[in-house]
Amino acid sequence: MTNQSKRIVLGVQYDGANWRGWQTQPDGHTVQDRLEAALKSFTLLDVDTMCAGRTDTGVHALEQVVHFDIPLERDMNSWVRGVNTFLPPSIAVRWATAVPTDSGKDFHARFSASARQYQYVLYNHPVRSPMMAGRAGWVFRPLSLERMQQAARHLIGQHDFSAFRAAQCQANSPVKHMQMITVEQRGDLFLFTLKANAFLHHMVRNILGSLIVVGVGNQPPEWIKTVLDGRDRALAAPTFMPDGLYLAKIDYDPIWSLPQAPVVNALWPD
Amino acid sequence: MTNQSKRIVLGVQYDGANWRGWQTQPDGHTVQDRLEAALKSFTLLDVDTMCAGRTDTGVHALEQVVHFDIPLERDMNSWVRGVNTFLPPSIAVRWATAVPTDSGKDFHARFSASARQYQYVLYNHPVRSPMMAGRAGWVFRPLSLERMQQAARHLIGQHDFSAFRAAQCQANSPVKHMQMITVEQRGDLFLFTLKANAFLHHMVRNILGSLIVVGVGNQPPEWIKTVLDGRDRALAAPTFMPDGLYLAKIDYDPIWSLPQAPVVNALWPD
Repeated sequence: MTNQSKRIVLGVQYDGANWRGWQTQPDGHTVQDRLEAALKSFTLLDVDTMCAGRTDTGVHALEQVVHFDIPLERDMNSWVRGVNTFLPPSIAVRWATAVPTDSGKDFHARFSASARQYQYVLYNHPVRSPMMAGRAGWVFRPLSLERMQQAARHLIGQHDFSAFRAAQCQANSPVKHMQMITVEQRGDLFLFTLKANAFLHHMVRNILGSLIVVGVGNQPPEWIKTVLDGRDRALAAPTFMPDGLYLAKIDYDPIWSLPQAPVVNALWPD
Repeated sequence: MTNQSKRIVLGVQYDGANWRGWQTQPDGHTVQDRLEAALKSFTLLDVDTMCAGRTDTGVHALEQVVHFDIPLERDMNSWVRGVNTFLPPSIAVRWATAVPTDSGKDFHARFSASARQYQYVLYNHPVRSPMMAGRAGWVFRPLSLERMQQAARHLIGQHDFSAFRAAQCQANSPVKHMQMITVEQRGDLFLFTLKANAFLHHMVRNILGSLIVVGVGNQPPEWIKTVLDGRDRALAAPTFMPDGLYLAKIDYDPIWSLPQAPVVNALWPD
């Protein structure tokens, strides 16, 4: 970054149902395109943003973290309210902060992140629900919470997750450390929470597909371990729909003092 | 109805954010238009539907009740799955049943209803949330649960609700019996539940506007009683936004044995 610039970090929330994912595209119909256009409207400057974790078409973010450099002084409340004026209802800046850039090691939304947390919301009912359209995956066959919990346990720890990796994944290594997977149920809704140092492309949706195969009774919980150990994408279930996937939280070293929100469940307050 | 016809009753759920309300319009962009088009696609017959309670632009229904007459035999599962094939993701038939028509008094979605229940979801936070866009009203000033609960109590019972009645309301009488109003809070969300024998046009949104005036501290809770007693729309607060309004439940005599779903909260499962 230039000496005159400040590095600004934003917490950005979006409902991804009607966007072609995070990353800028020629058609301009992405969250990054809309955020950068709003930043330009607010600052009259061209702004290049960097996010913590790219999300695919239809995927949501409770708190995406984004940074950019800009030779401009604004108070943090202005960044939130000013930029939101130029954003559509499905995208909003939730907080803003400036990070110090004199420490020799700059903050970076992606490279400074130590872990990522995703949530997946599943609606389990014989008939689809308009209230859940675009917000939750739908499974019409009855799901067993206990079977999915048993299966999920096999994924915890450091593993080669090639079995759950999309062909187009650009990660250097398929080895990731899954720190947590929980499955909870409330009424017709299931909430899956996954936390890892990093995720491969489509990894959450591919894991979901396989947990559902177990949940409906087509495979025993131990099958997940066989799939994982096989390291072969062809052994796992198809990629599950994006509708219920939420990027929930990015972890950073507390030295950065980001004003991140407490993690909430995607579909119900605690 | 003709002797050859069956009277079919449907439970219909919709996310009203992108529809111009229930009632058919020349532009065809209403829930009734889309439901009748789907019924025609499924049956190859023209179908006129009657609903329990018309909803305005942007208002949702967890369970709207609809009836129609048709000279056709289909099993109930076919009505649900068949019609849903022709409906967009934001509208779905959740259940279907046939009602007997030989008792001398036919079931009617609107006239057989004994009470209606609405819910209103409010998001209370300094910054708007994309997750709540179109699904909840938004108030950025802090709200007091207790003050709103105190104010709401003044509306319970039989009253002339002219103070909360839209100018274009076509009801015969402004006197309605409010059987219940509750206000609950979970985190940043408030849930208002209102049950009455019937509601005037915009009545819930007008009541919400006035409860919010009390909730942010601009009027004392007793002000609601002054407004109610004044029977003058000009005394109450403006009509609040439709985004958080859900038609939640229609009550009927159990003799009709409708397979209605238990009432759930609009934004969180219990």
